[in-house]
Amino acid sequence: MQTITRRLAQLLHASNPADIPPHVLHEAKRALVNWIGAAVGGCRDDGVKLALETISEFAGREQATVIGHRLRLDSLNAALVNGISSNILDFDDTHARIVVHPTASIACALLALSEARRFSGVDFLHGLVLGIEVECRLLDPRVAEYKFGWSPTTSVAALGAAAACSRVLRLTEQQIAWALGIAATQASGLRETGGSMSKAFNAGHAARCGLTAALLAARGFTGAETALEGPKGFISAFGEPREVETIIEDWGDTYHLELNTYKAFPCGIVAHPAICGCLELHAQGIRSDVIEAVQLTVHPMAKRLTGRKRPVAPLDAKLSVYHAAAAALVYGRVNVKEFSARCITDPAVVHLRDKISVVVNERYARDEAEVELKLTGGRAVKTHIDHAIGSLERPMSDAALNEKLRSLAEDVLTADEISELLARLWSLDRAEDASAIARAAVSASI
Amino acid sequence: MQTITRRLAQLLHASNPADIPPHVLHEAKRALVNWIGAAVGGCRDDGVKLALETISEFAGREQATVIGHRLRLDSLNAALVNGISSNILDFDDTHARIVVHPTASIACALLALSEARRFSGVDFLHGLVLGIEVECRLLDPRVAEYKFGWSPTTSVAALGAAAACSRVLRLTEQQIAWALGIAATQASGLRETGGSMSKAFNAGHAARCGLTAALLAARGFTGAETALEGPKGFISAFGEPREVETIIEDWGDTYHLELNTYKAFPCGIVAHPAICGCLELHAQGIRSDVIEAVQLTVHPMAKRLTGRKRPVAPLDAKLSVYHAAAAALVYGRVNVKEFSARCITDPAVVHLRDKISVVVNERYARDEAEVELKLTGGRAVKTHIDHAIGSLERPMSDAALNEKLRSLAEDVLTADEISELLARLWSLDRAEDASAIARAAVSASI
Repeated sequence: MQTITRRLAQLLHASNPADIPPHVLHEAKRALVNWIGAAVGGCRDDGVKLALETISEFAGREQATVIGHRLRLDSLNAALVNGISSNILDFDDTHARIVVHPTASIACALLALSEARRFSGVDFLHGLVLGIEVECRLLDPRVAEYKFGWSPTTSVAALGAAAACSRVLRLTEQQIAWALGIAATQASGLRETGGSMSKAFNAGHAARCGLTAALLAARGFTGAETALEGPKGFISAFGEPREVETIIEDWGDTYHLELNTYKAFPCGIVAHPAICGCLELHAQGIRSDVIEAVQLTVHPMAKRLTGRKRPVAPLDAKLSVYHAAAAALVYGRVNVKEFSARCITDPAVVHLRDKISVVVNERYARDEAEVELKLTGGRAVKTHIDHAIGSLERPMSDAALNEKLRSLAEDVLTADEISELLARLWSLDRAEDASAIARAAVSASI
Repeated sequence: MQTITRRLAQLLHASNPADIPPHVLHEAKRALVNWIGAAVGGCRDDGVKLALETISEFAGREQATVIGHRLRLDSLNAALVNGISSNILDFDDTHARIVVHPTASIACALLALSEARRFSGVDFLHGLVLGIEVECRLLDPRVAEYKFGWSPTTSVAALGAAAACSRVLRLTEQQIAWALGIAATQASGLRETGGSMSKAFNAGHAARCGLTAALLAARGFTGAETALEGPKGFISAFGEPREVETIIEDWGDTYHLELNTYKAFPCGIVAHPAICGCLELHAQGIRSDVIEAVQLTVHPMAKRLTGRKRPVAPLDAKLSVYHAAAAALVYGRVNVKEFSARCITDPAVVHLRDKISVVVNERYARDEAEVELKLTGGRAVKTHIDHAIGSLERPMSDAALNEKLRSLAEDVLTADEISELLARLWSLDRAEDASAIARAAVSASI
């Protein structure tokens, strides 16, 4: 009887790009557009700069792209630094059922690998689909419900990255089992890191660990054949006893990537429906100087998690539905800049923020909200949001994902370079060389 | 009220080499002699070779010594590879009260750092003392009792290495707290790796993670101030709720290094008392061909951790009290070679192994065993081991540690080079430059 670790390796080994339904491959591209936008947007952050300063002393070969930077690093350190960039804005993708941000670590590992080993664009997409599948299947639901100190995403991210890299490296079934084992023993990541740079570090660390695992296994470095299900293995360490067969059950029938969603706004997701309502009213032509009062009706979690009335710092503002709604009504957009210190202290925003009241409706869904404005002259307008943009029911369109990347990348790449990057991402399934993405993630002129 | 993480950082920051009692500094040297012997002995192992092949493609700068190899690597990768060498023979030191192997990861991180930043020999020893103190204080006793999937040693090793490196780098209290936080979120290591190369990888990975944490923190990269004791932090993730104040209680009154012991045999320590008994009987002139049955009476952990009846690979055999006892009775010695494939498949060993039964005595101490032989002709002999050689009650002498290193290093360094290495280790407290050890760990001629 083969172990679960081995059977998972077998499934990964047997999987082919042709097995993946076209809509899943398309979703993989959407995930990449979202991921690289977040990474380009985050690449100038202080945390990334400090990590680069530290690492560049120890990194030697210029093998791999650091997203948004001319400096090149060896593949393993590039995976680390790009992972930090990917996560630092909290603009990751989110699985709609289990709260995990699946793409960043896998994509960073594959990106780094694409410049060290030649593989095709469709292999990159296939690897991403498989890596996400492994991550989501390995995650203990109780970890995903935040019952432990573990960060759900990073606890499984090295395994996802190892699975993805193993497949594009065309490892044998035995080597894939080893890679999973070597990744499992590096699995880590504490939620207590929230609010510090080490939170984003987790994503990069997992990318590096997963890539290392696949590269070691490719040389014959051995892992445990029972690393996942053994009594001293991953499943038992990261959670509570559970039916390990579920890890491989119904493999290939559906894909976790089908449940992936993308944030339209770089702030707490529970504030998103209210932001949608405010943006709709702004789009109707209503300007903030005619607004006398704003009432937001929201799900209880929105008030509980984003109820900060007068935020003072960017990280505060991301947890303030008051600020986000005011910014939406003043600027007609809620992107990274709308959470900057300049916008937090903009008199127009501050003035409007104080006119906002938040009412809770217990019967609302989490992605539902109502926005009601009282305007000068006594007129009132309101709008009801059934599902926020970016939810599974009302996903961001491909065009909206393009716009999100454009807005995040505008200080890092030229408009033409952004177009080129997008073109390469959307045509990745036809690229003979997956490293085309990496080369397009750095500006020649900025 | 300061957090525990911060208070631990404060204690580390305030500690000075002059605070450490001379016998503790001497024990630190003994730990280093034992460690570097194990690492030199392990440096030609297949696992190390495969890791070197893999890593050297991605490592750039020749900053740091790879023990026993002319090839040099960047500091972080050197820490990784040397950690694998240190652990692959299972010849580490062992804390006599909590089953943790404290030195390897810390020493490998410090060794790598000693060639990138200049610090003195006494700083190296001081760092090692502090790192071991942090490791042992952070270890949840229930993890140490193998109640979880976690490898006790590696779960805390990155934190120990981070503490040690933080101190020799003379980080501020704030930076040390960050380093502990960055190390905590990388903490990992599964016991399920036993029997595969990824077990030894754990030691190197922790060295690399801890060194990375200290270097990042030195640049200002932030960790969580509550990384250890927070509800989503290290203590809660790696074990069960416990009194976190105990982590810093009675700091400086005694030192965990005082409880350190060194293995006389390169295999699971719980098997050592049974090996001692078998060697004693062999020394009495009893030869394996007259043995009809062997009964080993051991502490429960010896059976649980080294209960593999028919090992097939060297790494298996190290976790087999059956194999170790058979080898002791057949060859009259239990060194590295007695765990080679040749000895595992030696018909005399295989034949005797199948005659061994293992009985558990719950009242036994961990370093206690009884060996009873039934000989042809009906005669029976037995011996009782109160304390195995290498236990706290019956420690290896400094001279025995020198001999252990000599025997391990004989294929890697010349006799003169071994003498030079030993001289540098025993005089480390007087060395202005701690990297003297690293330079002596490679042969000029072999």
